[in-house]
Amino acid sequence: MSERQLHLNAFLMGVGHHEAAWRHPRTDPSRLDDVRHYANLAVIAERGTFDSVFLADGVQLFGDVRHSIAAGFEPLTLLTALAGATSGIGLIATASTGFSEPFNLARSFASLDHISGGRAGWNIVTTAGDRAAQNFNRDANAEHGERYRRAAEFLDVVTALWDSWEDEALVVDPASGVFADPDKVHEINHRGDFFRVRGPLNATRGPQGHPLLVQAGSSEDGKAFAAAHAEAVFTAQQTFEEGVAFYADLKGRLAAHGRTPDQLVVLPGIVPVLGSTEEEAARLNDELDDLIVPTRAVHQLSELIGFDLTDHPLDERLPPFPPVTRINGAKSRFELVRDLSERDGLTLRQLLRRLGGGRGHQVVTGTPEAIADHIETWFRGGAADGFNIMAPLLPSGLEEFVDHVVPILRRRGLFRTEYTGTTLREHYGLARPRSRYSALSV
Amino acid sequence: MSERQLHLNAFLMGVGHHEAAWRHPRTDPSRLDDVRHYANLAVIAERGTFDSVFLADGVQLFGDVRHSIAAGFEPLTLLTALAGATSGIGLIATASTGFSEPFNLARSFASLDHISGGRAGWNIVTTAGDRAAQNFNRDANAEHGERYRRAAEFLDVVTALWDSWEDEALVVDPASGVFADPDKVHEINHRGDFFRVRGPLNATRGPQGHPLLVQAGSSEDGKAFAAAHAEAVFTAQQTFEEGVAFYADLKGRLAAHGRTPDQLVVLPGIVPVLGSTEEEAARLNDELDDLIVPTRAVHQLSELIGFDLTDHPLDERLPPFPPVTRINGAKSRFELVRDLSERDGLTLRQLLRRLGGGRGHQVVTGTPEAIADHIETWFRGGAADGFNIMAPLLPSGLEEFVDHVVPILRRRGLFRTEYTGTTLREHYGLARPRSRYSALSV
Repeated sequence: MSERQLHLNAFLMGVGHHEAAWRHPRTDPSRLDDVRHYANLAVIAERGTFDSVFLADGVQLFGDVRHSIAAGFEPLTLLTALAGATSGIGLIATASTGFSEPFNLARSFASLDHISGGRAGWNIVTTAGDRAAQNFNRDANAEHGERYRRAAEFLDVVTALWDSWEDEALVVDPASGVFADPDKVHEINHRGDFFRVRGPLNATRGPQGHPLLVQAGSSEDGKAFAAAHAEAVFTAQQTFEEGVAFYADLKGRLAAHGRTPDQLVVLPGIVPVLGSTEEEAARLNDELDDLIVPTRAVHQLSELIGFDLTDHPLDERLPPFPPVTRINGAKSRFELVRDLSERDGLTLRQLLRRLGGGRGHQVVTGTPEAIADHIETWFRGGAADGFNIMAPLLPSGLEEFVDHVVPILRRRGLFRTEYTGTTLREHYGLARPRSRYSALSV
Repeated sequence: MSERQLHLNAFLMGVGHHEAAWRHPRTDPSRLDDVRHYANLAVIAERGTFDSVFLADGVQLFGDVRHSIAAGFEPLTLLTALAGATSGIGLIATASTGFSEPFNLARSFASLDHISGGRAGWNIVTTAGDRAAQNFNRDANAEHGERYRRAAEFLDVVTALWDSWEDEALVVDPASGVFADPDKVHEINHRGDFFRVRGPLNATRGPQGHPLLVQAGSSEDGKAFAAAHAEAVFTAQQTFEEGVAFYADLKGRLAAHGRTPDQLVVLPGIVPVLGSTEEEAARLNDELDDLIVPTRAVHQLSELIGFDLTDHPLDERLPPFPPVTRINGAKSRFELVRDLSERDGLTLRQLLRRLGGGRGHQVVTGTPEAIADHIETWFRGGAADGFNIMAPLLPSGLEEFVDHVVPILRRRGLFRTEYTGTTLREHYGLARPRSRYSALSV
């Protein structure tokens, strides 16, 4: 298998990514609060030798309460539980730079990296929306650019703390009573615009040095951040042409940061709606779209893109969208929805159906062979290094992907048949960073 | 077993509570970073039908780096891993009210409660020391009284968030598409001196309603806080008389808060140094004390009590202690150390030996029968509802306690032979709280 290899991430989301998944007879919504459901998903993904599983996150209750799908879990604790249920697969949790302290976050991810034997990844988000800010002592959220400036400084503090114990810092000599080499444990003495942090971290360096750094924003600020810092990027791209353009844009930005294209992996999201025939797949897609509750969907969409559509009549064409500069939400998702609605002249109801499956990620309906073809086309055509797999129903959609699509990708020589490394970085083919302090003392 | 029953908590601490534990040939310090070591400890405690295991915490690196014993774990993630390795025992994590956001902490503990099936407990600490504050954007820590005022408000926000989803809030009706009853999900709209939090929490109510609330400060502020809020109290008491006085004091304060004595469980710490004979136990105690590194010990002590003794000659008697009003550290531990040193006229070296085993907790050296007698005396004599067991060496000291002391306590009818409930609250005989919002609507 010397050929370039695909990377696959299983994006876990309750009982499925389709927003009406919990209403479909193939799911069991009573399992939303059952950790064994999520453990089962991770085990299925590991059977499929996926690089990783991933949990998204927000720090607010989304949408209207009546239709909001809530469960009891926070990503870092849930992923820690999944670490114990698996042995090889990577574990990526979303955590926001907006509403926590870098010291706490650095510790928690270092801890997950230790517990999992080097399988931790952090999806760095800045968190949009005033509702989130109102859970954290503020009336309104910070402006988009400021959120990203805070994120960059937050990340700098976190990585410095991960580096504050060099790999060789532990002496652990019972005879002399010396536990650590004080020359290899560093105060970071960070003083910036947002944070002052002395350090060192009170956790030793994890197996990966730094947990894998993932990013998912595709706005101008988001791409600039990703090019400077991210090692894997989740993105929503509706068409192959857009995918190629995004991929080239992002990879092209790396050189300015002294990075090479292979140091960042681009993973568009894809919702595979599978059937043993095209007709069966299309039927499942229709069944799901018919279960969408428009009230819920329009609330979710309005919060997602930061543009209120809740008063717009369902069967009228959408109003003109405001300039993106006036949006303080997820800017890239706003633009994606605007382009989709303007290009095809959609009514609100049509738009909700178009987005219901994947919230802006491409929904691909078809047989396992057709889905594999789609994946291969994007992968070979310069639009993706792999995919973020968002099964519409869980566990069934992930099981079908692992049992029917993964074998095709393997037969084509595109995807691993077993893990060749033990850490998440090794799965993604990314180097283990040295401590910034070790580098200085060389 | 209708008789009043003991409660036992296993306080887990690296390879042992004695500060020189890692230097003793019976421990393996290479396991400090190995999650399986901690899982093994939890399994041993569960075999002994302990009520719970407990992890302490700080948000700084303690003492001088050369002798500081650091590992890679943060308590909430580590306990989540232990949840998967066990099925019945409670899981108590320390978390500070000083340096995190109530929304984040409420979510993480709710998540652990869901993951563990109702076995989560929170040991509420305010965190002393400027070194801690310097990791969180400040030069100095807040003053003792202000820390407790912040803690009380923090706790009020956290419990309101846990209550924000009433138990009956989930409808989950696929046919109608209604997921939750909006009349049973509440914004908390907290506006206080320290926090403004809108809510609701984005996590459903956990199996216990509220994870168990534990507290460990024994200062005047600490006792007032415990009487108002805590359901279990960890405390350091050197003598039986002090234990009786503390127990009566704390239980006597409950009525003023409309609480009964059985709503708060008092658990003094005890370091059992076990031997099959008194001589064997005393020899182990000496071996451990001989391994103390004075430089390390004096650093740890100075930080613990907030009074710098690092320049004091080891073999001279201690200087007069300053008034406790000038101390902004752990006030009750300061007073305990001051009383011990003044009462017995100790040199610094003698004091370090006296404290080395338990950092102020009583060290009891003897046979299993003698330790059981000691426990029974305190339990029947009104000094304790149970004990916080701090094995000097781990795992060996915990194994010996479970295999040799627990059977004696069981034969005497003082301790359970199997779990009679499934949640941590049930183990401690404490009621499950109703949501404050449910109570209003009755």
